[in-house]
Amino acid sequence: MTRSAILDHAVKLASQVGLSGLTIGHLAEDLKLSKSGVFAHFQSKEALQIQVLETAAQRFVEEVVKPALGEPRGEPRLRAIFQRWLGWAKSQQTPGGCLFVAASVELDDRPGPVRDRLVELQSEWLALIANVVRAGIAEKEFRLDADPEQLAHDLYAVMLGYHHASRLLQDPRAQARANAAFDNLIGACRQTRRTA
Amino acid sequence: MTRSAILDHAVKLASQVGLSGLTIGHLAEDLKLSKSGVFAHFQSKEALQIQVLETAAQRFVEEVVKPALGEPRGEPRLRAIFQRWLGWAKSQQTPGGCLFVAASVELDDRPGPVRDRLVELQSEWLALIANVVRAGIAEKEFRLDADPEQLAHDLYAVMLGYHHASRLLQDPRAQARANAAFDNLIGACRQTRRTA
Repeated sequence: MTRSAILDHAVKLASQVGLSGLTIGHLAEDLKLSKSGVFAHFQSKEALQIQVLETAAQRFVEEVVKPALGEPRGEPRLRAIFQRWLGWAKSQQTPGGCLFVAASVELDDRPGPVRDRLVELQSEWLALIANVVRAGIAEKEFRLDADPEQLAHDLYAVMLGYHHASRLLQDPRAQARANAAFDNLIGACRQTRRTA
Repeated sequence: MTRSAILDHAVKLASQVGLSGLTIGHLAEDLKLSKSGVFAHFQSKEALQIQVLETAAQRFVEEVVKPALGEPRGEPRLRAIFQRWLGWAKSQQTPGGCLFVAASVELDDRPGPVRDRLVELQSEWLALIANVVRAGIAEKEFRLDADPEQLAHDLYAVMLGYHHASRLLQDPRAQARANAAFDNLIGACRQTRRTA
C-alpha cells in the first residue's frame, strides 16, 4: 500500500477520532498492515499527524481554493469560497466533518509542532479570504472602508456556526441560515455609507 | 471526596482531554482515588460524561445565564449574554476552553445518550438567546421583522469564531473582532429599513 493511500485513510479516520486519537496502531489495524510497515512510512505519531494535516490541506486547496479562485474577483469569488467551504464541511471524504475545525478545538491547548502547523494553515486560510475581500475592494465591488481581516474573521465564524448547526444539531435550516448570514455580511460591505 | 468535588475536577479535565478522553481510570489517577471508588459514584463512563455535561451546564447557568437575565430586557441583556459567554470561554475553571464547544466537535458523529444530552443543552442555549431577542422586539428595541432564531444562530457563530481566534490562533484582536461582529449584528437589528 502506498504512503498516499495510507494518508487518505488517515485523513478520513482523523476526521472521526480526532488527530490525537489517530495512532499508528489504529491505522495499521484498519488497513490490515503491520504496525512496523506503517511506522516505516511516518516514524512517529507526530509526523503522521502533520502529514495528515498536509494531505487535508492539499485536498482543501484542490476542492475549495483553486476552483473558487477561478471565479471573477470580488463577490463571485468570495461567494464561491464560502459555498465551497460548506460543501467541504459535508464532504463524504471526511465523514467526521472538517478536519481543521475538529483539530482546532482539539489542539488549541496542546503546544507542539502539530498545533504550530495547524495555526499556520488556519492563518493562511484567513489571509486568503482577506485577500479575496481586498481584491473586491480594488475592483470597487466592496466599500473602500471595508475591513478585509474583520470580514475574513466574520465569514469564518459563519462557517464554524454552520459546522455546528449542520453536524451537531442537524438543523435542516443550517444552510439557509449560513447563506443569510453571508448575504448580510456582504450586503453591509456593498453598501455605501458615509461616516462623519 | 464528594461526588461534586470529583465532578468539578472531571469538568476541568474534560475541557482539556475531551469528553471521550475522560475515563474513570484517568480521573481516579488524577485524584488519587481508587478506580472502584470513582466507579461507585458513576457506574459507567457514559454516566460520568453526562454528569460532566450537567455540572458544566449548571455552572454555565450561574456564570452566564442568571447574571445576564438580571440585566434590562433588549440590548443590555443580549450584550450581557454575549460578554459573559466570552468570559466563560476564557475562564480558568475550564483551562481547555468551553466544554460545550469542544464536545460539539467531538461528539457530532458519535450517536448515543451523551450526544443527545449535548444537543438538548445546545438547543436550549440557542433558544434562550432567541428569547432574549424576542423580548427585545417586544420592548421595541429591535426591529419587528428581526428574526430571533437567525440572530441567535449568528451570535453563536460569532462566539465560535471568538473561541477559535482567541484559543487556537491566540489573536490579540480576537475580543475586538468579536465585539465588532456583535455590534454589526445588533446595529442591523436596531435599524429601521423599509422593503418594497
